[in-house]
Amino acid sequence: MDQTFSYTHLYNFTQNIFLAIGCSDEDAATATKALLAADVRGIDSHGVARLSGYVRLWEAGRVNATPNIRIIHESPSTAVVDGDAGLGLVVAVYAMNIAIEKAKICGTGWVSVQNSNHFGIAGYHAMMALQHDMIGMAMTNASALVAPTFSKERMLGTNPIAVAIPAGAEEPFVADFATTTAANGKLEILQRKHADAPLGWIQDVNGNETTDAHVLKNNGALLPLGSDREHGSHKGYALGSIVDIFSAVLSGANYGPWANPFPAYVPMPENQPGKGLGHFLGAMRIDAFRKAEDFKKDMDQWLHRFRTATPIHPEQKVLVPGDPERLFEQERMEKGIPLVASVVEDLTKVGQKFNVNL
Amino acid sequence: MDQTFSYTHLYNFTQNIFLAIGCSDEDAATATKALLAADVRGIDSHGVARLSGYVRLWEAGRVNATPNIRIIHESPSTAVVDGDAGLGLVVAVYAMNIAIEKAKICGTGWVSVQNSNHFGIAGYHAMMALQHDMIGMAMTNASALVAPTFSKERMLGTNPIAVAIPAGAEEPFVADFATTTAANGKLEILQRKHADAPLGWIQDVNGNETTDAHVLKNNGALLPLGSDREHGSHKGYALGSIVDIFSAVLSGANYGPWANPFPAYVPMPENQPGKGLGHFLGAMRIDAFRKAEDFKKDMDQWLHRFRTATPIHPEQKVLVPGDPERLFEQERMEKGIPLVASVVEDLTKVGQKFNVNL
Repeated sequence: MDQTFSYTHLYNFTQNIFLAIGCSDEDAATATKALLAADVRGIDSHGVARLSGYVRLWEAGRVNATPNIRIIHESPSTAVVDGDAGLGLVVAVYAMNIAIEKAKICGTGWVSVQNSNHFGIAGYHAMMALQHDMIGMAMTNASALVAPTFSKERMLGTNPIAVAIPAGAEEPFVADFATTTAANGKLEILQRKHADAPLGWIQDVNGNETTDAHVLKNNGALLPLGSDREHGSHKGYALGSIVDIFSAVLSGANYGPWANPFPAYVPMPENQPGKGLGHFLGAMRIDAFRKAEDFKKDMDQWLHRFRTATPIHPEQKVLVPGDPERLFEQERMEKGIPLVASVVEDLTKVGQKFNVNL
Repeated sequence: MDQTFSYTHLYNFTQNIFLAIGCSDEDAATATKALLAADVRGIDSHGVARLSGYVRLWEAGRVNATPNIRIIHESPSTAVVDGDAGLGLVVAVYAMNIAIEKAKICGTGWVSVQNSNHFGIAGYHAMMALQHDMIGMAMTNASALVAPTFSKERMLGTNPIAVAIPAGAEEPFVADFATTTAANGKLEILQRKHADAPLGWIQDVNGNETTDAHVLKNNGALLPLGSDREHGSHKGYALGSIVDIFSAVLSGANYGPWANPFPAYVPMPENQPGKGLGHFLGAMRIDAFRKAEDFKKDMDQWLHRFRTATPIHPEQKVLVPGDPERLFEQERMEKGIPLVASVVEDLTKVGQKFNVNL
């Protein structure tokens, strides 16, 4: 049965699961906040719906609950972090804090991460910069589900990019998007409904266009942002590649088709060239460029001008990246977080494993 | 009549035109190299075809041929440069050199530029980093031709992003793309042929989809990468916005609908909030992250794996960003640069103004 839970309820439950697999108090809290940010912001595919997946990775020995996360190389404005196979939810927060500290001293900070795992939503990590009057950036690679332009093979993950930009009186700019036409989570929704996907989202095993939402199970592929060559799929492919290289080649993680799979039952790719998944996190201090108050004044004007641009249909206002997620956040912190029956069931089972009640 | 010219021939001609409007020897050489990089790499819309446009901007007093380009704010890893209304072709090179110098000391360098003009192709500036074993990035805002998702109004330029990544034995990765479904140059080609545009490239003045390639003249708009909401246009819109904010809000240039128009006959937008156009340039030293030789070994494997991915059609290999432009470069440096009759005519006229023979 679909059910709605308060944020606090899901917070306590999730934290207890992370504690049960052996995370420290601090790491359990860090991971819980990062994971639930997805549910709160309406990105249901990346929140507690994935908790059992993280637990299975831990059971398979692919996630280390007590990692020794450390810097293995650095310069004044950069670092490479070894996540020691920890939860990406914890490793990325650690790395983003380094980026922020470096930006305080040096103007900007850039951290590439190896040996990590899924880090939840990219936007959460990017938004950590906002309270410091910094621009935050976060990206991650992921297991290969996406076919480059002209390719039959899946070579890239959905490789999201997030950029958070502070403002003054206006609500900030927070972009957070997969570099594919549609996120995999949207496809999963169609699969559950047995509905067709729009043309331009996916291709079949032979590289032909298809509306069959189940095609990924038969070696089909998601398409890069742009869908096809005529509509710029080579640009989405380039973006996904940049994310892969910044996150994994720059850090020494596994890149391209060698990236670690999220489902614990999927065998690891053979001949992996690096360690774990990779992330790339950045922070740019506004007043390393101009006075923060001047920037915010202009940023407010930018945001206001775009939010009041003349809409095509009067009932659908022009939005700024982050606006839809902010509405979710307001509603769900107040009224609770709705979970579909299958997720409730899944969480209940995970709880039973560790004697934690949902 | 269509004609083909050697690189050297067009180089001398272009340099003489820049000298004729008053550029220093050094600036004329810098601008010529940057401008011709477009012709050589097959991006015909951004090369000598624009030379008369630059001259008209100079005639209109919008381009300063003898600018005092200078840093107006900086930190160890950042700077803001005032281009003093100089040619973007010169200002961006100056700014990219600062980014590279900062990266040598600090690991990375990031320069936001105000008070500039069109800078040619973004890829040229990003590629300046390659010889230093650095990753280069370049972006610029431009006058508003693009409608955000749900918007009738044009709010953003085609706002390109370029990222150049060095490799070892393999040819490097060089992405350079407008954040729209199709670059404006592609639309101009269809206009000349009186051909229709594919659906998904443009919308008309009311925000309806259209194939009329002339629609930009009637307040139609280019569409962000993704074409429509269902295919991710909000992501292309986010990317174009990020370029606009990094280039213009961070520097104090004109942003969004206030960006300076390229054609000298188009009046300047009223109530401009900043100075000129904005750019954003970045350099990341590879060995600020890991040993350059280790990175290059992995990057070679990345490039080789993607270039040999199984193609959908055996006759169309999978490409890596920058491959098509590199083929153009090889061919045109050897066999010359073909110019269509209208461009030959246009250049001849510009030459006559200054007693320079094409």
